[in-house]
Amino acid sequence: MTDTAACLAVVLAAGEGTRMKSALPKVMHAVGGLPMVDHVIAAARAAGADRLAVVIGAGADTVRGHLARTAGDAAVFEQAERRGTAHAVLAARPALEAGAAHVVILYGDTPLVRPATIAALRAALADGADVAVLGFEPADPTGYGRLVEDGGRLARIVEEKDAGPEEKAIRRCNAGLMAFRGEHLPALLDRIGNANAKGEFYLTDAIELAGAAGLTATVVLSGADEVAGVNDRVQLAAAEAVFQAERRQAAMLAGATLAAPKTVFFAHDTVLGRDVVVEPNVVFGPGVTVEDGAVIRAFSHLEGARVGAGATIGPYARLRPGADLAAGAHIGNFVEIKNADIGAGAKVNHLTYIGDASIGAGSNIGAGTITCNYDGVFKSRTVIGAGVFVGSNTTLVAPVSVGDGGYTAAGSVITRDVPADAMAFGRARQVVKEGHAAKVRAALKAKKAEMAKG
Amino acid sequence: MTDTAACLAVVLAAGEGTRMKSALPKVMHAVGGLPMVDHVIAAARAAGADRLAVVIGAGADTVRGHLARTAGDAAVFEQAERRGTAHAVLAARPALEAGAAHVVILYGDTPLVRPATIAALRAALADGADVAVLGFEPADPTGYGRLVEDGGRLARIVEEKDAGPEEKAIRRCNAGLMAFRGEHLPALLDRIGNANAKGEFYLTDAIELAGAAGLTATVVLSGADEVAGVNDRVQLAAAEAVFQAERRQAAMLAGATLAAPKTVFFAHDTVLGRDVVVEPNVVFGPGVTVEDGAVIRAFSHLEGARVGAGATIGPYARLRPGADLAAGAHIGNFVEIKNADIGAGAKVNHLTYIGDASIGAGSNIGAGTITCNYDGVFKSRTVIGAGVFVGSNTTLVAPVSVGDGGYTAAGSVITRDVPADAMAFGRARQVVKEGHAAKVRAALKAKKAEMAKG
Amino acid sequence: MTDTAACLAVVLAAGEGTRMKSALPKVMHAVGGLPMVDHVIAAARAAGADRLAVVIGAGADTVRGHLARTAGDAAVFEQAERRGTAHAVLAARPALEAGAAHVVILYGDTPLVRPATIAALRAALADGADVAVLGFEPADPTGYGRLVEDGGRLARIVEEKDAGPEEKAIRRCNAGLMAFRGEHLPALLDRIGNANAKGEFYLTDAIELAGAAGLTATVVLSGADEVAGVNDRVQLAAAEAVFQAERRQAAMLAGATLAAPKTVFFAHDTVLGRDVVVEPNVVFGPGVTVEDGAVIRAFSHLEGARVGAGATIGPYARLRPGADLAAGAHIGNFVEIKNADIGAGAKVNHLTYIGDASIGAGSNIGAGTITCNYDGVFKSRTVIGAGVFVGSNTTLVAPVSVGDGGYTAAGSVITRDVPADAMAFGRARQVVKEGHAAKVRAALKAKKAEMAKG
Repeated sequence: MTDTAACLAVVLAAGEGTRMKSALPKVMHAVGGLPMVDHVIAAARAAGADRLAVVIGAGADTVRGHLARTAGDAAVFEQAERRGTAHAVLAARPALEAGAAHVVILYGDTPLVRPATIAALRAALADGADVAVLGFEPADPTGYGRLVEDGGRLARIVEEKDAGPEEKAIRRCNAGLMAFRGEHLPALLDRIGNANAKGEFYLTDAIELAGAAGLTATVVLSGADEVAGVNDRVQLAAAEAVFQAERRQAAMLAGATLAAPKTVFFAHDTVLGRDVVVEPNVVFGPGVTVEDGAVIRAFSHLEGARVGAGATIGPYARLRPGADLAAGAHIGNFVEIKNADIGAGAKVNHLTYIGDASIGAGSNIGAGTITCNYDGVFKSRTVIGAGVFVGSNTTLVAPVSVGDGGYTAAGSVITRDVPADAMAFGRARQVVKEGHAAKVRAALKAKKAEMAKG
Repeated sequence: MTDTAACLAVVLAAGEGTRMKSALPKVMHAVGGLPMVDHVIAAARAAGADRLAVVIGAGADTVRGHLARTAGDAAVFEQAERRGTAHAVLAARPALEAGAAHVVILYGDTPLVRPATIAALRAALADGADVAVLGFEPADPTGYGRLVEDGGRLARIVEEKDAGPEEKAIRRCNAGLMAFRGEHLPALLDRIGNANAKGEFYLTDAIELAGAAGLTATVVLSGADEVAGVNDRVQLAAAEAVFQAERRQAAMLAGATLAAPKTVFFAHDTVLGRDVVVEPNVVFGPGVTVEDGAVIRAFSHLEGARVGAGATIGPYARLRPGADLAAGAHIGNFVEIKNADIGAGAKVNHLTYIGDASIGAGSNIGAGTITCNYDGVFKSRTVIGAGVFVGSNTTLVAPVSVGDGGYTAAGSVITRDVPADAMAFGRARQVVKEGHAAKVRAALKAKKAEMAKG
Repeated sequence: MTDTAACLAVVLAAGEGTRMKSALPKVMHAVGGLPMVDHVIAAARAAGADRLAVVIGAGADTVRGHLARTAGDAAVFEQAERRGTAHAVLAARPALEAGAAHVVILYGDTPLVRPATIAALRAALADGADVAVLGFEPADPTGYGRLVEDGGRLARIVEEKDAGPEEKAIRRCNAGLMAFRGEHLPALLDRIGNANAKGEFYLTDAIELAGAAGLTATVVLSGADEVAGVNDRVQLAAAEAVFQAERRQAAMLAGATLAAPKTVFFAHDTVLGRDVVVEPNVVFGPGVTVEDGAVIRAFSHLEGARVGAGATIGPYARLRPGADLAAGAHIGNFVEIKNADIGAGAKVNHLTYIGDASIGAGSNIGAGTITCNYDGVFKSRTVIGAGVFVGSNTTLVAPVSVGDGGYTAAGSVITRDVPADAMAFGRARQVVKEGHAAKVRAALKAKKAEMAKG
């Protein structure tokens, strides 16, 4: 699908996104937990783009900072004023002039674009076209630019408002994505004018100019879902829904059971093994791998975690970044695991917080156990060996360890290391006052009666 | 949209609702957490109704008690027997005779009716009609009363069973809602007879009688969703779904991100600020306000709570009535907050119950902390100052306080006030018995082996 | 609907299910928490089948073991090689030869088949047919076998690949289910050959052979949903969705309120009483009964539990097998109940684990209470009487009891029985060190500053 010809992808990511009504730049809004612009960059790379230029504008500092972390090799250009798509591409002029066999123009707000679609545009160039334009055929073409074809070639793109009756009858519309043979693009862009109502420079004008210059333009068709731009949060949710539907279907066909697929939410990088069972209402944040045969019960929430083969988590399990569960581990309800290794077959079944810790194979952590990993300034680790039995409601004050085969009594506060095979107690002895509950109850009721009077 | 002419809304809310199969009167079943009759009353008020009459019947005591709390200014009339819609309206005769320029007849089981629709009926009166009837055009009109029009006027309403072939071909159907010029209504109602199969008095007969009296009736069209009456719980769920879809769309267009809108449930009065992010599977009960930039993570449940700007809650956070979170507060997983003020930037991150309390700015509440606010008779308060560090698994026995900058040791039971900057311990010292765990384990296994033999 | 004529149901459950990509045999994958083959067996029984034969193959040991537990009276036959549907039926030859007035052929991967449909096939036999074939009319018949009828009789079934243009135009397709008068079936099966591309023995050939033998075959129509076979996990999820939609609708029409029906998941045997309210996001595992007027709040998860009349659970309540809640009990958030009886009106409201226990009427269990029911080898019981007040964060080390009217102080570890009306303390006294928090904080900050330097 990819092509080894040097390819530059120019991603236009400068738009205001006014209708998002957001302080966050539009292209930073996420689908599947990943900013939209990152989806587009990933698709470009998968289609063989070996150089990237991103044109930013609205919220430039935020987007630039993000790209520096996630796409360090991309050349970033700022379009200071928004004066049309051609003007935006020209903001990346240094990248264009560095030369590339193919230049594809992509949009940072179309997170669903597929690598195969970008590759198809490139293939059209390889087949001899000088320009390839992505088209789609919406149910209702009203509002879209129409692709005016003539004998198999694309003659020009006409905007709805400028279209005559014959042109309005055209069903093929402009999706926005284009690919150019790199040698021609700078000259074409320089010829685009702004003699139009808004005084903007439109990339669509490049088609007619290409024809005038004896170049050939052609249309590559795609589906409407894929090229839909996101302009408000309803459209963002719609893109998310398409993304999720694709991921759910793929996971099921690969051998995972999703009892209620519409209630399972994937991140862009979720990996599920074979015979994984996912019950209803599960949320996967970024960075999760679930190995073969593991069971994710209802109402679980995972981020940055590995679930080993045959492990079971939930219902109501929360795995936070750094949770690493070995094969056959069992994490139960109302349990939070953060930055912790849980050994093979170990059990943490009820109402527990395990943070900054390691738990050895086969250990059993009682209900209500808390690792106290934070003293207000520092985080410290709790190290539990193999075959340990931590009694219920144990408070483990880190840094602290319990050696292999150790045992803590229920309700203990453990502040010092427990050697292997030792038992630690850290709780008060029970005292019983006969009849005292009856007295307390009587006194409380008397007080209440008095208050009711007073 | 509203109209200042004196307007009486008569809400018919007496129906049995047999198909609901419920001990609760039909109109008390809720949509968006609000009884259906309240939705109709709110729509009437928003359309400018300055007087309200509610006709009750089935479950009269329950409905009357509810209205006394929520619509104290409404005149409530009981229809002792159910003998038809005109009979129901006549139950409110004292309200009709008190005079009103407009009288609109509404139904307590149509919770989706819009103020604009009621206003459109009133506008038709203002434009000269004496009677205005709401019509709709369902995909399949079978079963509905047909609106027989003649030269732009509504001549009569004919029931399905009485309709001839020509009338059956009519697509416009009677939605039930009507508006009358108040001066004519009592006389029209008095003329309606019950010479029909069921021996009931039908309000629809008023149209033909109006024509006979030289009055003009007209049709105002609306959508089918809006006027659908709820007669069983499948229809109740359908109304809820329409309500939710509208609220979700409105929230997104106003600048909130709903990653999976179909999994977010709003109450009738939920308020979300700009750039609020709501993850999948969030339930808003009544009385919730979320301020700008706050994040509501997955599996959270909120009722009667305020979430301040930039605060984060969840996943698995439960805010109960009286939870008031200042800006930047952080409520984490498996945490319940009830009747408590949480200061700016304060953190309550894990497995904690905070009830009847206040927590100062910047304080950190350790995992597993419990406020003991109830002694079986009285509720008492816990007061935590600013910059406090409550160690994990602390039990705070109210009434009790921890002063600014105070510190409680992990695993402590705090029964007396802790002064500012003081540290409180309330836990036993740890004792370790070397080798004891190994002995206990051996003994338990021996016992098990013996039992297996025996 | 059932028929008293002796009826043998032959369930074909030998398929490989390659596209499931699963180590679990296909027919063992569950819908509504019940393996698909069990749904088919239940439908057969409900339609009056008094004898059952199940033909197994892929994963034979797993399926045989399962059937031994759930359908002990079924005769199980193994089809060693998969050589077509007729070959599969012949694997059950001993059952066929034992004689039955009716033999119905069913498929273990069609979990949605209705008893009424099987009964309709039998009714066709009772009306004089020798063979009855279930047909359906899909929107697109491509790929299905067509039912070639002639004067009201079914002449033969022709596969898509063998069909001529006229046959391809036929809309009625073969659903696979058939019923035979038992006396004819063995002879028909013996005559079926395998002179076809795959060299397999097809049951569909029985129709033409029946006609040749002077027997009459007829078609019974059904819906497409019902007869859809499950071949991959996308189809499994689709079957689950149909199952859930039917159960939700039935529950609502019977008088339960489901605020958001699409977020409520039923098991095959869930029972809901009248005026039960189920909030969004509730999962019912197998074995749950909810009595009249109970409320299941959002995010609750129930398995093997009874919720008594008027009880309330959740949000975030987890009831595990053996949870038995008496009338008016209240189980709150982040609470797990396992193998425990909760008395009338008792309250377990916050962050608690109750396992292997009984709690008397009207008792109140404080937040953070843990029953320590497991010592690493044995499980022991906790017995709480009536009118008991268990203070918050109490650790109950079983076996242990608290008598009627007893009281435990908050934060106590209870290791010995508490008599009726007595009060038990098991916690350390609080010690306050004035100014110590300030010192600790200063020291920690100093250390941090030093580390930042170093």
